[in-house]
Amino acid sequence: MSFIADHIQAMRGYTYGEQPSDLSVVKLNTNENPYPPSPAVQEALANLDLDELRRYPNATSLTLRERIAAEHGLVAEQVLVTNGGDEAIRLVATACLTPNSVLVSTEPGYSLYPVIASVLNARYIPMHLGHDFRPDGTAASRCIAQHARLVCIPNPNSPSGVLMSMDEIDAFAAQFPGLLLIDEAYVDFVEPDLKHNLIPLLSNHHNLLLLRTFSKGYSLAGARVGYLLGEESFISTLSAKVRDSYNVNSVSQAIALAALDDTKHARETWDAVRTERQRVTQALKNGGFNVPESQANFVLPQRSDSTSMNETYERLREANIFVRYFKTPRLHDRLRVTIGSSSQNDAFIQALFAS
Amino acid sequence: MSFIADHIQAMRGYTYGEQPSDLSVVKLNTNENPYPPSPAVQEALANLDLDELRRYPNATSLTLRERIAAEHGLVAEQVLVTNGGDEAIRLVATACLTPNSVLVSTEPGYSLYPVIASVLNARYIPMHLGHDFRPDGTAASRCIAQHARLVCIPNPNSPSGVLMSMDEIDAFAAQFPGLLLIDEAYVDFVEPDLKHNLIPLLSNHHNLLLLRTFSKGYSLAGARVGYLLGEESFISTLSAKVRDSYNVNSVSQAIALAALDDTKHARETWDAVRTERQRVTQALKNGGFNVPESQANFVLPQRSDSTSMNETYERLREANIFVRYFKTPRLHDRLRVTIGSSSQNDAFIQALFAS
Repeated sequence: MSFIADHIQAMRGYTYGEQPSDLSVVKLNTNENPYPPSPAVQEALANLDLDELRRYPNATSLTLRERIAAEHGLVAEQVLVTNGGDEAIRLVATACLTPNSVLVSTEPGYSLYPVIASVLNARYIPMHLGHDFRPDGTAASRCIAQHARLVCIPNPNSPSGVLMSMDEIDAFAAQFPGLLLIDEAYVDFVEPDLKHNLIPLLSNHHNLLLLRTFSKGYSLAGARVGYLLGEESFISTLSAKVRDSYNVNSVSQAIALAALDDTKHARETWDAVRTERQRVTQALKNGGFNVPESQANFVLPQRSDSTSMNETYERLREANIFVRYFKTPRLHDRLRVTIGSSSQNDAFIQALFAS
Repeated sequence: MSFIADHIQAMRGYTYGEQPSDLSVVKLNTNENPYPPSPAVQEALANLDLDELRRYPNATSLTLRERIAAEHGLVAEQVLVTNGGDEAIRLVATACLTPNSVLVSTEPGYSLYPVIASVLNARYIPMHLGHDFRPDGTAASRCIAQHARLVCIPNPNSPSGVLMSMDEIDAFAAQFPGLLLIDEAYVDFVEPDLKHNLIPLLSNHHNLLLLRTFSKGYSLAGARVGYLLGEESFISTLSAKVRDSYNVNSVSQAIALAALDDTKHARETWDAVRTERQRVTQALKNGGFNVPESQANFVLPQRSDSTSMNETYERLREANIFVRYFKTPRLHDRLRVTIGSSSQNDAFIQALFAS
């Protein structure tokens, strides 16, 4: 007897970015915030009562949910706190999909989506984005024709950083009758002048889910705290039936709360990332690269002669600068480069143009 | 369109034990260790570099896996570290089960197993235990006749604390051709004189999986760290395909490592729990209760006249003493009572016999 189900046997797992233990690496490959989290986080760690570890955590992260809800003008019942954003995606897919039902996500996009579909033995259909990394006006009707039950859109898009507007999302949610998950992992880095805010749309669209995370905006990738915002009865089903009972540990709950007590610190890091993003983008453009307008904490420079970036990627790697390279027809002439600290960005730019 | 799949719509979620925020409660309802974790844990928290939180955690908990492997005389490839033991159970079931395939677990047992089967739209068949809370000699052949793909046995059993011996597990694993998961959440509290150790069986049975956790033995329920021991290729499939990429946060990895650096502390808590277990058992027996011989950190006293314990449960609750009561035909005349500190146990015994 094989112990593994056939569909698991046949699938391929998710390939995550390298996490080198060597701290001297200029690490611009997995979109971490280059600035440390708030000092309030350190304080929360030092003050943690050991008895909090001995006992089970609050099962539904109640205090944290209340705090997040207040931050967004929602109620705690609209918030599900998860072990990183990835868990939220898995929970939504698990509640919604059955074998052979259809999950659609953008291509290029977040390559975890097809993997999660495979684990559930569901079908994955890519929504191919245009040259501008945007879905065209027929995307929602195509999803309907494909009988999609769940559409997942990273916004800002990964790996390009391109942002779909509120109006575009609003129109999509109105037209598409299935579940629409907008993965806002990078939304904190959007230019404030755009006044981009999808949260008011939640009251108009019961099929809309918004995914957020502390990983990037709050410099807490190591703590694994994400959350989902959506309609109360859907959130309640995920929480009561599909979620592991104690999915978020006590320390991470305390850390996330501390981070929310100092949003000023987080906002300063967002500003700094935006300033550096502009500087890096300009330097790349000056050097002859095409760079889509990014609203995230990474950029996707494209060589203007469309030749492969594989060698450049390897050369940077040898210089101890890690960026992300995707060996696909669409992305082979690009690199996805996280916006780091000023000195990290300098090191990248210098090494890139040193050839 | 309903957003929830039919089988999720139809199922019921897991009912976890109450986690009161009131710290004055004598909390004997969810089997936490009454003693705090090692001071080394506090030190690890205080010394955590904030940069560890900014970056993603080690995706596969490599250092911790190596340390756990060394502890058990295994290699790191036989170890999967999970976000509490519950995640390990879910990963095994997800990799192994398909809709309508069969999961068997003991009844009474851990009520999470049928819930996980439901989420996967698989079938759950109970393995009814005898009056002594043991499977009889025909259990493995019945599992075969039921076409079970996965059999899960908590050992020591919950809620009775009764232990199946190495020989019994060995014989079961040899006869049953599917996956056999032995949930050893409470194994640290087994009497050392029994020399109970299932780890050597791993080399004889490729279908055998052992589940461990830091929640009870290491007083770290709040940190959510469990692990699975098993055959390398199976562990690798779970890790690479089914597991969320960064399933265990950096702090919990650091805390678990610190706890393993001070196993002396943990062992002292196990000894203390065993001493108290004996004392509580004797007091209950003296008071006329039947008490199965428990090798776990809880006991399951049964009223000798077999009348319901519901009222007693409620009365204890009013006295601020929380224990677990299961309203099933099999368990209605019993209470599951965690072994607490001496003073907690005194409070329980006193209140129980105060009527």
